[in-house]
Amino acid sequence: MEMPERCQLPGTTKHTPHMAIKVKCIDGGICAPKGFLSAAVGCGIKNPEAKRLDLGLIYSEAPTVGWAVYTQNEVCAAPVRLSSSYLKSHPPRAIIVNSGNANACTGHQGMVNARTMAHDASKALGILQREVQVCSTGIIGVPLPMERIQPKIGPLVEELKADGEDIANAIMTSDTRQKSVAAECKIGGKKVRIGAVAKGAGMINPHMATMLCFVTTDANISQSEIKAATLEAVEQSFNRISVDGDMSTNDTVVVMANGEAGNNRIVRGGKGKKKFREALTQVMLHLAKLIVSDGERVTKLVEVKVTGAASPLDAERIARAVGNSKLVKCSWNGNDPNWGRIIHAVGYSGARVKEEMVEIHFDGVLACQNGVAAKTSIDELSSAVKKDEFTVCINLNIGKGCYSLFTSDLSPEYVEFNREEYALNRKS
Amino acid sequence: MEMPERCQLPGTTKHTPHMAIKVKCIDGGICAPKGFLSAAVGCGIKNPEAKRLDLGLIYSEAPTVGWAVYTQNEVCAAPVRLSSSYLKSHPPRAIIVNSGNANACTGHQGMVNARTMAHDASKALGILQREVQVCSTGIIGVPLPMERIQPKIGPLVEELKADGEDIANAIMTSDTRQKSVAAECKIGGKKVRIGAVAKGAGMINPHMATMLCFVTTDANISQSEIKAATLEAVEQSFNRISVDGDMSTNDTVVVMANGEAGNNRIVRGGKGKKKFREALTQVMLHLAKLIVSDGERVTKLVEVKVTGAASPLDAERIARAVGNSKLVKCSWNGNDPNWGRIIHAVGYSGARVKEEMVEIHFDGVLACQNGVAAKTSIDELSSAVKKDEFTVCINLNIGKGCYSLFTSDLSPEYVEFNREEYALNRKS
Repeated sequence: MEMPERCQLPGTTKHTPHMAIKVKCIDGGICAPKGFLSAAVGCGIKNPEAKRLDLGLIYSEAPTVGWAVYTQNEVCAAPVRLSSSYLKSHPPRAIIVNSGNANACTGHQGMVNARTMAHDASKALGILQREVQVCSTGIIGVPLPMERIQPKIGPLVEELKADGEDIANAIMTSDTRQKSVAAECKIGGKKVRIGAVAKGAGMINPHMATMLCFVTTDANISQSEIKAATLEAVEQSFNRISVDGDMSTNDTVVVMANGEAGNNRIVRGGKGKKKFREALTQVMLHLAKLIVSDGERVTKLVEVKVTGAASPLDAERIARAVGNSKLVKCSWNGNDPNWGRIIHAVGYSGARVKEEMVEIHFDGVLACQNGVAAKTSIDELSSAVKKDEFTVCINLNIGKGCYSLFTSDLSPEYVEFNREEYALNRKS
Repeated sequence: MEMPERCQLPGTTKHTPHMAIKVKCIDGGICAPKGFLSAAVGCGIKNPEAKRLDLGLIYSEAPTVGWAVYTQNEVCAAPVRLSSSYLKSHPPRAIIVNSGNANACTGHQGMVNARTMAHDASKALGILQREVQVCSTGIIGVPLPMERIQPKIGPLVEELKADGEDIANAIMTSDTRQKSVAAECKIGGKKVRIGAVAKGAGMINPHMATMLCFVTTDANISQSEIKAATLEAVEQSFNRISVDGDMSTNDTVVVMANGEAGNNRIVRGGKGKKKFREALTQVMLHLAKLIVSDGERVTKLVEVKVTGAASPLDAERIARAVGNSKLVKCSWNGNDPNWGRIIHAVGYSGARVKEEMVEIHFDGVLACQNGVAAKTSIDELSSAVKKDEFTVCINLNIGKGCYSLFTSDLSPEYVEFNREEYALNRKS
């Protein structure tokens, strides 16, 4: 079988050492796992003519276990507040999602509207209202056009089928590419599938806000293990990417498992747990990297790999300081192997640093040793940074703390793109 | 007397309420206070032909008291390490400064070179080596060309005169304008003068690194009071500006006082203390704002004013999150009154926030009330943000914490400008 391009899982790139387990890429996206259906319609949120898909639904025919992770932004959208309250008592069995409007900073009416979406979807599906997760992405501060959304929820449910294509389109905002993947691995002799779909582009651009990721699996797994696996996979993937250092009001990852694969139940501490967690992590990391490389007007995917820090937290601080520094990101955009800007971000990261111990490599080429310029020629360094994808390794040489962050360059076009959305949106 | 443009002290703008004390702008810059001399020469650091001034000296004929504040970056330049060690035992009486090379990330040789600069200057001036503060600004990671600097230190001392013009030029890197100011106020019936010179442009751009500010005063003041006054003034000025959120390896503020005004000594808790501190703060804040508005390719000076936060620290967190958000800064560049991006940065600042209480004004025009869009027209909001200078007021309405930060927009030209310096510098 030929693998579609989107199925190059991260375990197969040079940046992430091939994981011990075998994951096979398969077709079908979010509907590759057994028993999951999805659909999307256009209801005129993105544009009044309703020509673009902007309302989607994902649904498990069988009951589920599951978990979700939401933005930690203190200012969070109504659907995030609603969905997180539902999650406390009920695992997610369906997700209703709209793009074009984030339903954020919309006050009491925003909550009423989110609740109406959950209510109408649950009635049409014949499930509990609290089994529905509601997600929105788009402009902030504008009420949802419920008069356009509500009449389409019935037709949306009727459209449900085992095809993940439309939903991948429907959740896109400023994304230039669909972000969808499906993988298969054997657990206890049974084939288990994981499907996922995501949107990003900007990470984030708060007027077309939000990173969203929905994951389905037919694994038979306990509620407590799906929660633990979700938290671990998010920590290893979506929490390790950064385009502009901003955090959206709507970021959400929802994972649903329906047990249809018929494997022996995966439980905490039990067999198959490790394999499932690694597969879930690979799927999420793949989408996370797609999100970075499809960031608004981004030209490079850069892994900032910190080693030898005094602690893992110090390593993370350094990776984030470097990966979010405007000046460092500008230099990458210009193919400039500017280790001076990197060591200087290391210095203000808040981590413990012995300047005379610091070592910096661009894609394996030594740029800085003992805190001073290495004798490498500028041409050699430049050619490392010219690539579309490269790694910056920063070794502090004082401890064992490690951390990796996937980030991007900062382009003049990013700034151009983000200059004037508000006025444009309000006018449209 | 007509005031030169650079003498519009911040107390006279709408952003900073007029201070109770009267400060009169005067000419003369760093040499306006009695008994201070300065000079600058070109020695070929910025360019081999030595056509540009790049080595400067400031000197007090009389003994001094004084204090200095340095970058908190863990990776700091050799001159910063040297000067801060000298400060522990001796107040600064002279400052030798070069531009074009930061003497940062230069290892042991960097310390030797900084020490040589202090040594040679002290010999030529006939003062103690530890009375000399050494400052450098420019590219990182390249050894200082001592063979060009050392022969010029003698001539530099011979050039000393009561004229602050050349030194203001000599410390410029990517600054487009000289940053110099002098002010006079009466303390105990005597005229006391404060002169200052600064360089910024980028705050910072680590390859033409650094914010530097040198302040002279003929006030008669105790060592402990000049230290306290310096710390307070820096906190109210240079610690409240941000262009790109990066912190240089070389940032330095040095204050020297020689008592030549003949006023009764200003001491902690004594008369005149308040007046002097306010004058010093006004002088520094004036230069701080000049630095922001002359940031690399900056088009706007924006004050982010946070009120009603749960604590002053929370207010500062919010001001910094908003003032450093790439997306917020992009929107300002596009004259976009995008309060959604602002409230969203408020949300991830780490401060306590009640979304439904948040109020945001652009230059007095209400954009967001109770966490949702105000009924103000987009045209009204846009015209507030179109100005070259405006204030964003964010009221949390939950406490009494306040903080103000001066910041800038983020322009496509900033990114262009910061893309490719390294290669260019290394080639030159």
